[in-house]
Amino acid sequence: DPKLKIFALNSNRPLAEKIAEHVGVELGKLSVDRFSDGEIQINIEESVRGDNVYVIQSTSAPVNDNLMELLIMVDALRRASAKTINVVIPYYGYARQDRKARSREPITAKLVANMLQNSGVDRVIALDLHAAQIQGFFDIPVDHLMGAPLLAEYFIKEGVAQDAVVISPDHGGVTRARALAEFLKSPIAIIDKRRPRANVAQIMNIIGDVKGKKCIMIDDMIDTAGTITLGAQALIDAGAKEVYASCTHAVLSGPAIERLDNSPIKEVVVTDSIQLPKEKQIDKIKQVSVAPLIGAAIKRINENRPVSPLFKKVFK
Amino acid sequence: DPKLKIFALNSNRPLAEKIAEHVGVELGKLSVDRFSDGEIQINIEESVRGDNVYVIQSTSAPVNDNLMELLIMVDALRRASAKTINVVIPYYGYARQDRKARSREPITAKLVANMLQNSGVDRVIALDLHAAQIQGFFDIPVDHLMGAPLLAEYFIKEGVAQDAVVISPDHGGVTRARALAEFLKSPIAIIDKRRPRANVAQIMNIIGDVKGKKCIMIDDMIDTAGTITLGAQALIDAGAKEVYASCTHAVLSGPAIERLDNSPIKEVVVTDSIQLPKEKQIDKIKQVSVAPLIGAAIKRINENRPVSPLFKKVFK
Ligand SMILES: Nc1ncnc2c1ncn2[C@@H]1O[C@H](COP(=O)(O)O)[C@@H](O)[C@H]1O
Ligand SMILES: Nc1ncnc2c1ncn2[C@@H]1O[C@H](COP(=O)(O)O)[C@@H](O)[C@H]1O
Repeated sequence: DPKLKIFALNSNRPLAEKIAEHVGVELGKLSVDRFSDGEIQINIEESVRGDNVYVIQSTSAPVNDNLMELLIMVDALRRASAKTINVVIPYYGYARQDRKARSREPITAKLVANMLQNSGVDRVIALDLHAAQIQGFFDIPVDHLMGAPLLAEYFIKEGVAQDAVVISPDHGGVTRARALAEFLKSPIAIIDKRRPRANVAQIMNIIGDVKGKKCIMIDDMIDTAGTITLGAQALIDAGAKEVYASCTHAVLSGPAIERLDNSPIKEVVVTDSIQLPKEKQIDKIKQVSVAPLIGAAIKRINENRPVSPLFKKVFK
Repeated sequence: DPKLKIFALNSNRPLAEKIAEHVGVELGKLSVDRFSDGEIQINIEESVRGDNVYVIQSTSAPVNDNLMELLIMVDALRRASAKTINVVIPYYGYARQDRKARSREPITAKLVANMLQNSGVDRVIALDLHAAQIQGFFDIPVDHLMGAPLLAEYFIKEGVAQDAVVISPDHGGVTRARALAEFLKSPIAIIDKRRPRANVAQIMNIIGDVKGKKCIMIDDMIDTAGTITLGAQALIDAGAKEVYASCTHAVLSGPAIERLDNSPIKEVVVTDSIQLPKEKQIDKIKQVSVAPLIGAAIKRINENRPVSPLFKKVFK
């Protein structure tokens, strides 16, 4: 009988451990090392012959190293006769390079999809892809999980949901805001940014009623935190009582931590799709684990049951 | 008419500039940058539509970054309607992971070949691959260039060739030593390493006559320099007059520089297939450029002429 095996690579071991615990298995034995010149050395230290293997790896920074680790692992698994190779990519790097915005640009999100598929991956389990279209970059099954129920659960537990408005930081994010608002039974509002002329500061208009309300801004990721902190100030200026920021993927590069720290945002609620290094663990950042969601998805996939009902189940 | 265009990525711009000079073209306009989170951003800043494009990139350290740069560039070139995409990889990273030495290991050199080929590369120009078999990992044309004539030229010019013996540092390198010896019209000798028991120092036997001779050790690469510096001492102990070390690829990781500096090796003659950072440019390391060789190869390929006669031509 094929066994269910879970392997953790280096990007996010704490999450992988929690997922394995939820599924009720031990992490597979694996050595992932570097040669003296920096080349990745992988050796799988237990048999995977005929097994259903799940590899947990976010392609967060250092993105190229984490991606190569994943591809090399898949190569090793295929050559070691795994029955199915399922990769869990809680954060999918290069997702923003998903179209040609200018001439002669690459579409790196598609390149990455090709690389995964050609290396022998049978199935991808992803979470809040920057664009849902990235599913179509693959010709293999993609399970697209959604962090919103878990974030909603947090806001309800903490008593923030009452009298709240969910805010989309731009027009592209309205669908995402709608999803969270549905779980919270809240109205939504939209921040309408425009730049009247080049080299002139952006004007932020709030579409919707936020006066005296608790505002919960939602995005798929917070990277440099420019949009979200400017938006928070605009909400306060429009009379919001409190501002929360929330996202699935805490990229938090460059000036992000400083900006969040200095902003009027009360709490930044994120998931553990990306491992937060010590220096980014500031007080106002609260982490919600996606391990129950991913764990439940793995169990369902392994039992040949659909993954979609999870979004009602996880959110009790 | 299709134009010949050469683009340089970040691993080895000085070499790319020399190659372009030899070919007689300017380097193509290109921006290769990093987003705030470390993701690679490439934009080709001139038309390549219908052109024959050559991209120069060694996949030396940081290997994963340099490899991804190359793949993303190829993706952008293909989408920008280049007629042919030719990649020049003076140093091919992960070449030593070219077979399963143990169970459940990857074959990363093949994974890299697949990635290049699937991303749309039409042709690979490589230099002294760690194993010639790597050519067979591709189903597209691979031009396999050889640095030996250029290294030989150096030793002849410097008067080292007379009364010299070419030394293979192990049994696997005899063919390579033979090739250099042919250019130098020298005999060869072989260092025969064995370890009588585990955890006991290696014994080095010299097969061949080195007493009073100038010894030129040759390998495809020098990485941590362990083999080559121990071998040099064994040669001196066997009565060698002087010891030179030579290789195509100056990987020089970890303790390499310290070991070379403290060794009895008089000169370490390498090529510029890998760019040497300042801190590795010690006096005894001499660099020979492969730009004339690669430049000549590009011209021949572009004129639909065979590349192989180059090995007689470059070496006058
Ligand atoms: N890692 C990144 N950091 C910041 N911007 C990016 C990154 N990758 C791609 N982009 C740019 O982000 C834009 C797409 O973002 P979006 O409009 O939010 O889908 C494109 O113009 C990309 O050039
Ligand atoms: N980057 C690297 N540095 C050191 N050793 C490596 C590296 N990549 C692969 N190897 C190992 O080198 C051996 C092959 O080297 P060789 O016998 O010289 O072809 C294999 O056992 C590999 O595991």
